[in-house]
Amino acid sequence: MNLKKFVSSLFVLFLLFGCSQRKDNTQIIQKYNAISKMMVRNALTERTGYKWLKDLLKIGPRLSGSPGNFKAVEWVKNKMKEIGLDSVWLQKCKVPHWVRGNIEEAELLNARGKKIRNLHIADLGGSIGTPPNGLVANVVEVKSFDELKMLGTKAKNKIIFFNEKFDYGEINTFKAYSKAVKKRVYGAIEAAKVGAKAILIRTVGSAYDNKPHTGNMHYAKDIKKIPAAALGAIDSDYLSDVLIHHPDYKIKLKMNCENLPDTISYNVIGEIKGSEFPNQVIVVGGHLDCWDKGVGAHDDGAPALQTLEALDLIKRLDLKPKRTIRCVLFANEENGLNGGKTYGKYADTVKSETHIASIESDRGAFTPRGFSVKSDKNTLEKIKSWLPVLNNALIDWVKPGGSGADVGQIKKVKASIGYVPDAQRYMDLHHSDNDTFDKVHPREMELGTAAIAILSYIISQEGL
Amino acid sequence: MNLKKFVSSLFVLFLLFGCSQRKDNTQIIQKYNAISKMMVRNALTERTGYKWLKDLLKIGPRLSGSPGNFKAVEWVKNKMKEIGLDSVWLQKCKVPHWVRGNIEEAELLNARGKKIRNLHIADLGGSIGTPPNGLVANVVEVKSFDELKMLGTKAKNKIIFFNEKFDYGEINTFKAYSKAVKKRVYGAIEAAKVGAKAILIRTVGSAYDNKPHTGNMHYAKDIKKIPAAALGAIDSDYLSDVLIHHPDYKIKLKMNCENLPDTISYNVIGEIKGSEFPNQVIVVGGHLDCWDKGVGAHDDGAPALQTLEALDLIKRLDLKPKRTIRCVLFANEENGLNGGKTYGKYADTVKSETHIASIESDRGAFTPRGFSVKSDKNTLEKIKSWLPVLNNALIDWVKPGGSGADVGQIKKVKASIGYVPDAQRYMDLHHSDNDTFDKVHPREMELGTAAIAILSYIISQEGL
Repeated sequence: MNLKKFVSSLFVLFLLFGCSQRKDNTQIIQKYNAISKMMVRNALTERTGYKWLKDLLKIGPRLSGSPGNFKAVEWVKNKMKEIGLDSVWLQKCKVPHWVRGNIEEAELLNARGKKIRNLHIADLGGSIGTPPNGLVANVVEVKSFDELKMLGTKAKNKIIFFNEKFDYGEINTFKAYSKAVKKRVYGAIEAAKVGAKAILIRTVGSAYDNKPHTGNMHYAKDIKKIPAAALGAIDSDYLSDVLIHHPDYKIKLKMNCENLPDTISYNVIGEIKGSEFPNQVIVVGGHLDCWDKGVGAHDDGAPALQTLEALDLIKRLDLKPKRTIRCVLFANEENGLNGGKTYGKYADTVKSETHIASIESDRGAFTPRGFSVKSDKNTLEKIKSWLPVLNNALIDWVKPGGSGADVGQIKKVKASIGYVPDAQRYMDLHHSDNDTFDKVHPREMELGTAAIAILSYIISQEGL
Repeated sequence: MNLKKFVSSLFVLFLLFGCSQRKDNTQIIQKYNAISKMMVRNALTERTGYKWLKDLLKIGPRLSGSPGNFKAVEWVKNKMKEIGLDSVWLQKCKVPHWVRGNIEEAELLNARGKKIRNLHIADLGGSIGTPPNGLVANVVEVKSFDELKMLGTKAKNKIIFFNEKFDYGEINTFKAYSKAVKKRVYGAIEAAKVGAKAILIRTVGSAYDNKPHTGNMHYAKDIKKIPAAALGAIDSDYLSDVLIHHPDYKIKLKMNCENLPDTISYNVIGEIKGSEFPNQVIVVGGHLDCWDKGVGAHDDGAPALQTLEALDLIKRLDLKPKRTIRCVLFANEENGLNGGKTYGKYADTVKSETHIASIESDRGAFTPRGFSVKSDKNTLEKIKSWLPVLNNALIDWVKPGGSGADVGQIKKVKASIGYVPDAQRYMDLHHSDNDTFDKVHPREMELGTAAIAILSYIISQEGL
């Protein structure tokens, strides 16, 4: 074959291939277009998940090992039975049991020890408490770990105040969070290394208020454990200002939080058994535990319930998935990830079933934007080709990217997917007293439900 | 040339054309990528427009002809001078002058005339008042104009209660609004035709509360003018329920709103003169007037200020647009569109300049989603090719579609563009007491500013 022949054949093949792909895809789009629109309409009018959320949040916070945690497990188990899932079961896992206690105080004192005013703090999850009568120390402000190291002996017996601002200029609020959160996670270790008595970190959040965000922190083996708390954003600026004029001022910290022995909690699992390929499993889920500031409305109450409502929505519309769609509401994402790890181990070792896809909702319950997919290229392209249908629930893109902390623990899976809603407001409230029911908008939450239902249903019918 | 030759030449041309287009586009993307990221970062950190908004809203509502309207005109004119725009001027236009008055009452009475309770109403803009002592009448509920017509003589001397629900199942809240709003606009005309005394319409909004939404309504020549008000959503359900059990209950309406003689208001205009093609104009704008419920924070305070801040942002970054970028804050969009019409007439007849593009922001100040473009196909494709840059401000798409009521009045323009943010919350607050400063999120508003600044700047450099 000469070059011209070759090129023209290539061209024809190219056209044919393009056309056949388009045709296939057009058929799929047509097949699911009406169903997806029905899902959206039903979710928006029924608002079932939103009503569930109101009810679930009445339990209060759901931190691992807390009474709220166990009530929530019961609540979800009963809800799964009530909506008639084919199987409902609990999967045990060991979880830490940290309790905040009822004393969480910070007082600014002048050099003579006279109280100037109270400061708004939130103990960091996992922190030890102070001695019963509190601890008093001078305060040294630093912005970074490098600055801390340069302090040398000046850090000894001080309270280290990490005052790194949340980067308002970063459009991706999760990126800004990742950057700032290092002080929260490792601050106590680094400060203890240089002999500090305790740490205060500027709250890791995007709202400018005095509702400090809690969150997990670490200690390290052979490094002294010291108390750690977050300070409100407004108070952080105030304290920074005070320290310029009065470097001899002190802070008295009194916290009676503590780490109790590990306990047992549960992943709550329910599914719609696949009619043709019951052993092929699509997992949808979020985490049921939450921090004990606010009630975990956006993190992760509403998103977790979106994944449960996705199954209910499929049932409400009397659809019969060919493959199993399983909802897993994970335990202990916030301070251990033991729920995710336990399920991941199960999924990767179980012989009787194959996990083909997993979808996590753990980025708040705001208006849908996209799905972020970890998979091989062909699988990604396949999911991308469904975009016109997904767009009926305002999904504008499917891109390569991470899924979520929990479903990320399932390694043997064709596609690990993260549901991505708008995130401009999320870091205002996450892990703080701001994370309450009134911050969730019914339409925004329900569109997420619909998006997850559409994607999991198409995967159940078409496979991956 | 034989067919094969032709096909292979076509193929080569196709590849070459594709490559050269891609190359051109890659260069443009590279050229504006860093600038657009700077715009986003600057907007998110400075929050200039958000600070302006707080200040502007202190004036109170800005309905055409009201004291707030004129104060706002002054405020914007001064702001334009303060930020150093090259020209700042006012463009006169005649506007209606409707005033709500201080009496806006609805009482539910039993059959003997005893008061049962107050109902939450909002006079519709343009409505006449009731007689000074109010009017009392039985109430007939209808869902549609067809139902109204079937009432025949039963409508005579009654208050017609249009109780059509907002369609929660419609994903596009503007579509749901368009459908429901017909009762608000034409209800008084249709009801007067069948002899009704007044109308109440179920509030046109997506929140389930008792803060009724006002908005414009029409009378028709030779049809009797009757008073018209919106009733809160909760009260609408209540009234509907009451009427089932007590069809003989009455409503007493007392409203002293009135139409005063037309007056003069102004479009406020300022620009950055183009350095190379000053006579080629890109208009960006929103409307400065708003209804007198709430303070028009999302409709259209924040969006209007986004377009003004877009110019300031370009100046803050010391950029020099080649073509003129002009901000027009329009008068009287809400009840007459006389600002838009006046500017449109000017733009379409002025000899010394050409309008190449117009961008309107009048859909709330939530997180950016896309730009909706009315233009020929090539122009649309050109704007679409800039999507990777626009995406730095979270613009996910550029689609054919309408622009906005005001800039839509400019007919001789290459592209008439609407900025489209997320709209799931918008109809909760628009035209109601809910539309206040606290509903605007600084990050969401500022991303809109950045999106508009990026698009108008690229057009100013590249033309259309």
